[in-house]
Amino acid sequence: MSTRTLAELADELGGTLVGDGSVVIRGVAGIREAQPGDITFIANSRYDGYLQETQASAVICSQEDRASSVPLLKVDNPYLAFQKVVRLFRPELYKPMPGVHSTAVVSPAARIGEGASIGPHCVIESGARVGSNTVLMAGCYIGVQAVVGAECLLYPNVTVREECQLGDRCILHPGVVVGADGFGFALDAGRYHKIPQVGIVLIGSDVEIGANTTIDRATTDATRIGNGTKIDNLVQIGHNVVIGEHCIIVAQVGISGSSHLEDYVVVGGQAGIIGHIRIGKGAQVGGQAGVSKSLPPGATVWGTPANPLNLVKRINAYLQRLPQLFERAKRLEARVEKLEQEKKETVG
Amino acid sequence: MSTRTLAELADELGGTLVGDGSVVIRGVAGIREAQPGDITFIANSRYDGYLQETQASAVICSQEDRASSVPLLKVDNPYLAFQKVVRLFRPELYKPMPGVHSTAVVSPAARIGEGASIGPHCVIESGARVGSNTVLMAGCYIGVQAVVGAECLLYPNVTVREECQLGDRCILHPGVVVGADGFGFALDAGRYHKIPQVGIVLIGSDVEIGANTTIDRATTDATRIGNGTKIDNLVQIGHNVVIGEHCIIVAQVGISGSSHLEDYVVVGGQAGIIGHIRIGKGAQVGGQAGVSKSLPPGATVWGTPANPLNLVKRINAYLQRLPQLFERAKRLEARVEKLEQEKKETVG
Amino acid sequence: MSTRTLAELADELGGTLVGDGSVVIRGVAGIREAQPGDITFIANSRYDGYLQETQASAVICSQEDRASSVPLLKVDNPYLAFQKVVRLFRPELYKPMPGVHSTAVVSPAARIGEGASIGPHCVIESGARVGSNTVLMAGCYIGVQAVVGAECLLYPNVTVREECQLGDRCILHPGVVVGADGFGFALDAGRYHKIPQVGIVLIGSDVEIGANTTIDRATTDATRIGNGTKIDNLVQIGHNVVIGEHCIIVAQVGISGSSHLEDYVVVGGQAGIIGHIRIGKGAQVGGQAGVSKSLPPGATVWGTPANPLNLVKRINAYLQRLPQLFERAKRLEARVEKLEQEKKETVG
Repeated sequence: MSTRTLAELADELGGTLVGDGSVVIRGVAGIREAQPGDITFIANSRYDGYLQETQASAVICSQEDRASSVPLLKVDNPYLAFQKVVRLFRPELYKPMPGVHSTAVVSPAARIGEGASIGPHCVIESGARVGSNTVLMAGCYIGVQAVVGAECLLYPNVTVREECQLGDRCILHPGVVVGADGFGFALDAGRYHKIPQVGIVLIGSDVEIGANTTIDRATTDATRIGNGTKIDNLVQIGHNVVIGEHCIIVAQVGISGSSHLEDYVVVGGQAGIIGHIRIGKGAQVGGQAGVSKSLPPGATVWGTPANPLNLVKRINAYLQRLPQLFERAKRLEARVEKLEQEKKETVG
Repeated sequence: MSTRTLAELADELGGTLVGDGSVVIRGVAGIREAQPGDITFIANSRYDGYLQETQASAVICSQEDRASSVPLLKVDNPYLAFQKVVRLFRPELYKPMPGVHSTAVVSPAARIGEGASIGPHCVIESGARVGSNTVLMAGCYIGVQAVVGAECLLYPNVTVREECQLGDRCILHPGVVVGADGFGFALDAGRYHKIPQVGIVLIGSDVEIGANTTIDRATTDATRIGNGTKIDNLVQIGHNVVIGEHCIIVAQVGISGSSHLEDYVVVGGQAGIIGHIRIGKGAQVGGQAGVSKSLPPGATVWGTPANPLNLVKRINAYLQRLPQLFERAKRLEARVEKLEQEKKETVG
Repeated sequence: MSTRTLAELADELGGTLVGDGSVVIRGVAGIREAQPGDITFIANSRYDGYLQETQASAVICSQEDRASSVPLLKVDNPYLAFQKVVRLFRPELYKPMPGVHSTAVVSPAARIGEGASIGPHCVIESGARVGSNTVLMAGCYIGVQAVVGAECLLYPNVTVREECQLGDRCILHPGVVVGADGFGFALDAGRYHKIPQVGIVLIGSDVEIGANTTIDRATTDATRIGNGTKIDNLVQIGHNVVIGEHCIIVAQVGISGSSHLEDYVVVGGQAGIIGHIRIGKGAQVGGQAGVSKSLPPGATVWGTPANPLNLVKRINAYLQRLPQLFERAKRLEARVEKLEQEKKETVG
């Protein structure tokens, strides 16, 4: 465990120091649980209130002006700076030993890279390849001819089915399933017949996949996840979906078969995307939205069926006043009725 | 297996007997499949129809008046009474033997309590502790320095990651994941950088967690689940969420990072709760609702965005009549047009 | 691997050939990745554009007229024909060997059928039965007295809890949980008491269940899934639900306790069905719908709360114009105000 002065840290992180640079930092913690000697961070001005209460010896924050009795280390991206100080002060709690655990079942026709760690009760089938320095924790299954790249981390009970491929530095959380059959059936004479799913899943590098998320293999060809895309827990990605690079898919999202998300798309939690559509680069889909049509690049949508966010907000605001509108219509009808009545009498 | 007369059961359950107390009860079953000798229950008056058809020898029900040819045992809480008779008449089908299965991999630096049962292919890492009489079924994983309390029951393939803690008498169903990384990334120069998630998950006692539910570890500090809270299947609980005591979280709910549910909150199936908000004590969130703002204690909300239930119901009712409202507006416009026309002619 | 002429294939599939029947087919692939010698298919006229680009030697398609330089094999059901050619040209990549793997833990009181394959680290408890030619891949758990029929395929890490039963030819994808406790609690004196879930799950034959889907056991009696029903990933099926034959349940659907789906019901992704209702034969529930009332046979619904699809579409169209309707109401009020004013002046 290393220690740094605040001035040294400011230098390493490229930040501006407000306060005493000689303070010694020995650890890192959240703003509420930090102790003297710790550095902490606030990523969001809504947490500025904690500045007065924290026991931390310094606080990483954004460049805006803030009143603080604690020394501040101002940076452009507090989250990023926090990530760096965590790596500095918190070494890995647990780094599994390289090698194959005695209870793992590894086919002699599988290839395990140098420095890889294959945990207890893992199963690696014939023709599968695991890259160098990759860690498979307990109970992972790697199917026939599947490929896991280098420096990946697969948490316990991950399943990667046959022929699927992961790039390098991917993180798969517990219970992830890569390459289950896509959901395809042909109805004939009152029964559903299974369409064989003979494609694969191709995952790029630096992809993270959350716990119990499922990514189905393609009918033919491949379901694809681009480099740097991050997927949260319990997400469903259907067969032949293509997701670009650096997308963010929040928990419990469902993406139906053959849809295509371009790069930098962000999909909010529990949103659903219908099959066979295209979501343009950088589009943002709100939580619980139901997207049933293709979206142009940069679109921001919400609601079911999804519409531009501003329109949805406006309609939602009007909806609150819908009961009053019915009242107004009723009153208008009475007033018009009266005018018409008077008219008749006048004419009469 | 014990037998009781109905009079003895009425005594044990604190209920009122309507009918012959000398009837002998030997078992318990649902109202449709019960056989003579069985006691059954109806928790809901909508099932009163089955009273005429059941072959059960007695029926547990609520205190209201009911016509029945079968003896009735009236209690304040039929569900609770049913729970007690099941415990009486149905001994556990299967009670695993205490001890560590020969195929389990338990670190010598782990501590296993007296009477605990560690099933086949479990993995318990260094520094982990499992409490007395706790049962871990096949394939469970308990990470470094994690703690499982006493008398817990972990079904097959549960993952509890490093440093997370469960209280006593918790039930975790198959595939539960406790302590996967929270979903946090800092965008810098077009790439997402992982924010290390160095907090933990702290779960109280008497908590039940449904199959394949995921509870993420905190960025720093802890994601917390209070005593007595019950969580259904496929629920997602984000990092740094705090859930109070005796909450009910129905299947497929998603709770985003840093939100706080006070005690006795009930969240209906598939509802979503945005991050960084507070749900007051006893609030009820309807199924599929999308809660985007903090709620006061006792609130009852529905819809996306969530609003008070009565308002939502009223708006939904008006919505059904929206096409007619457009018709009415059109007719009104015609009538006003006619009045204006006549006015002009009169004036002209 | 077999080869066929296109004429032979047309004969086997009962299709009509348009083009050269002597072409030799050696493989099968998707339309974009097919190479010369491959047959491919288009199931949907939206993909007709690929007809001009494909390198395939023949294309299976529906009976409509199409311009194509590639030989066409026209059939009534292209998906079904594709399924047949895949079975012809793609032998199984991996057929596990019959027998019990040395690392599996099988109770001496379990019965394993002839030709069954029990993979590494499987656990089969006392009294359980596995049918002939069934394959259990790595890490599956079959509980006490549970029954898996013949010719089933259970992918890795599937859990089937005690006493639950599967018919023949079922496919369970990785992480499926059959028979976890239903979610039932009785509130008494401020605490929730668990209602024992002593029923089972009864699954018919030819049922497919997607990755990480959960099907809860009944409180008493059985949760039932009928023959030929297909369930996608991450679906939640509550206790005592009854699903008929040949239903389609798309990903992330939730079906609450005691609801009954008749045969041939189709439920779109992320839809929710409240408890204790009945969905009539052949009803179709749209994606993300929230069904809170029973539906008659053949109903087609969408939205939350769910309503007939045509009504929902009409209301959604009007909703887009709601801001304008408020405008129209305001203008009408001004016009009526003016008429009333003039009236007064006239009378005055």
